[in-house]
Amino acid sequence: MLNLPRRLLHGPGPSPVPPSVLEALALPCIGHMDPQFMRVMNEIREMLQQVFQTDNEMTLACSGTGSAGGEMLMDNLVEPGDRCLIGVNGVFGGRLAEKARRAGGLVQTVEADWGWAFDQDEIIARIDEIRPDLVALVHAETSTGALQPFDRLAEAVHRHGGLLVMDCVTSLSGLPVKIDQWQIDAAYSGTQKCLSCPPGLSPVTLSERAMHKLQNRQTPVHSWYLDLTLVGNYWSGSRAYHHTAPVNMNFGLHEALRLVLEEGLEVRFARHQRVHERLKQGLLERGFQYASDPEHSLPMLNLVRFPATVTDEAGLRRRLLDEFDLEIGGGLGKLSGKCWRIGLMGHGAQDENVDKIFAALDAVLPAV
Amino acid sequence: MLNLPRRLLHGPGPSPVPPSVLEALALPCIGHMDPQFMRVMNEIREMLQQVFQTDNEMTLACSGTGSAGGEMLMDNLVEPGDRCLIGVNGVFGGRLAEKARRAGGLVQTVEADWGWAFDQDEIIARIDEIRPDLVALVHAETSTGALQPFDRLAEAVHRHGGLLVMDCVTSLSGLPVKIDQWQIDAAYSGTQKCLSCPPGLSPVTLSERAMHKLQNRQTPVHSWYLDLTLVGNYWSGSRAYHHTAPVNMNFGLHEALRLVLEEGLEVRFARHQRVHERLKQGLLERGFQYASDPEHSLPMLNLVRFPATVTDEAGLRRRLLDEFDLEIGGGLGKLSGKCWRIGLMGHGAQDENVDKIFAALDAVLPAV
Repeated sequence: MLNLPRRLLHGPGPSPVPPSVLEALALPCIGHMDPQFMRVMNEIREMLQQVFQTDNEMTLACSGTGSAGGEMLMDNLVEPGDRCLIGVNGVFGGRLAEKARRAGGLVQTVEADWGWAFDQDEIIARIDEIRPDLVALVHAETSTGALQPFDRLAEAVHRHGGLLVMDCVTSLSGLPVKIDQWQIDAAYSGTQKCLSCPPGLSPVTLSERAMHKLQNRQTPVHSWYLDLTLVGNYWSGSRAYHHTAPVNMNFGLHEALRLVLEEGLEVRFARHQRVHERLKQGLLERGFQYASDPEHSLPMLNLVRFPATVTDEAGLRRRLLDEFDLEIGGGLGKLSGKCWRIGLMGHGAQDENVDKIFAALDAVLPAV
Repeated sequence: MLNLPRRLLHGPGPSPVPPSVLEALALPCIGHMDPQFMRVMNEIREMLQQVFQTDNEMTLACSGTGSAGGEMLMDNLVEPGDRCLIGVNGVFGGRLAEKARRAGGLVQTVEADWGWAFDQDEIIARIDEIRPDLVALVHAETSTGALQPFDRLAEAVHRHGGLLVMDCVTSLSGLPVKIDQWQIDAAYSGTQKCLSCPPGLSPVTLSERAMHKLQNRQTPVHSWYLDLTLVGNYWSGSRAYHHTAPVNMNFGLHEALRLVLEEGLEVRFARHQRVHERLKQGLLERGFQYASDPEHSLPMLNLVRFPATVTDEAGLRRRLLDEFDLEIGGGLGKLSGKCWRIGLMGHGAQDENVDKIFAALDAVLPAV
């Protein structure tokens, strides 16, 4: 059997997984067409609807990790020649732009400094100028810690007949994600962030407006595996066999969602915020500086510059891992070597975890 | 916690999962960039190379189910306008053709009756006629039980500069899959058949010839998630972050592969054959008839017509499931309602499982 360390997962995800989610993963496998698995799928959909705060019928767990969910949305909702406006203020916005391009979209990007959110008025002005078929932004930029407000965008997108797409990989169940209230047309997430399930599935949800676009496509979707018409028939409707779903991963997600709803979304959001503030205070006391927009920063992903005494940040992170089993994320993309990303996600957003982070930091940080 | 039945999985997959694989699935999650996870990935690659009987460096577990692996190969190896020859003698050959079309290939199919294998000379004649850029066939047609010989195809494919692709989803580790000896350029499998791991990953392997084609593409790969250049860099080489791998699924696959190699491939093949013969004899005694090519049929997937006394085959399968927790597969595609598919895969290919199948059948089959 594999001999593995027990890590304290406080990087950008995966996050710590509760024991009962691991137990659910290890339940005996059943068939992907078993009526009992159909029940599990139905319950997952119902729980995802609650977490996404939506009534969207087309709500399901895509059989791949978060990146697959993003690709599923771009591949199904972008037709060749579609005008796409993508917000790029970090790695994951850039990936959305790349996926839209590969789907055949004519992509224009709007850019912001890494760590900063977009001003919604600026986005709305670009929308009115370009009249895009699709607008996509990242709600919680895992590479920068920026939190993007989304509440005022849909009206502008819709008045030109477009769709509004949201990456909520890192925010879902850690911050309010109000799909219906904000009139988001399509959103995707991951299981390994605030849902605290291992990686392997990507929750997605699509509005009726998005489904109308999908149902009226003029060209086939590039991907067969991620073709939402086929996947959707398996998740509801005809129940036609499409692919063999990752059965045990869905057991794990089912339990993770049950725990989220048992705690309650508002309580969970407040816990993320409270524990974040505790971490932030201690980090500031230790000479760290926050590097993301103070008005729009995430509680579950803390982008910080390390104290001036730190000269070998990678070596220090390696010591935290080797000596304290503590995973802290390095900077990604253009922030590589410049920042750390400290995650407090889902089951990991607890006071005792913050204490362990501080104890490990105090043991390895060079003296001033 | 989910309340689920314990099923005897003897349909077309998923197959019964050994307890230690479920235990491995439930190991505490670690980071997808953790050096310890890199070790797990390396060990998975080495074990997959043994199971595929190949030295191919590009051997890895694609982060999706078997259908994703097939799409990964078609999407990366087919460029728009490529001539593709696809063998269609069941559902899964048809899917390969569809994936090649979506990748932009000019697809010609060669067809055979469902349940029958192709004569290699017939395929070779078509290859010499069409001079295809890519030829793809299904080694073990899960929808029909047909076993496709592959040992003589590569020379013809290669003399015209093409690539030979194999679907070995259902055969891998249950029947010899000799990637190097048969000069297969690319193959994909699934975890939930003879490897006896839950579904969620797709082992793939590519030859240097296939990698040369990939590295010299003129057009970008449609899929970003399945882009083998990016995925390959994560699995080896630069180790650059691409997507968050399904960490715990890989733990499960690691243990499943360890068990396969501990048993030994030849011993495992012989076990599948022996238990198949035991099942076959008992099925024939009970009035079932084999519906696939007697010269080329699979040991791990038995396509049978039920006795004439059976009038409601779906109802009977439902009784087997409800009263005996026994999953038997119905016919797929044009065999729906006409045949059953009885799987004896991996951990499920055991004498005691055959006895349980017989006991359940004897309890529900209508008297003659």
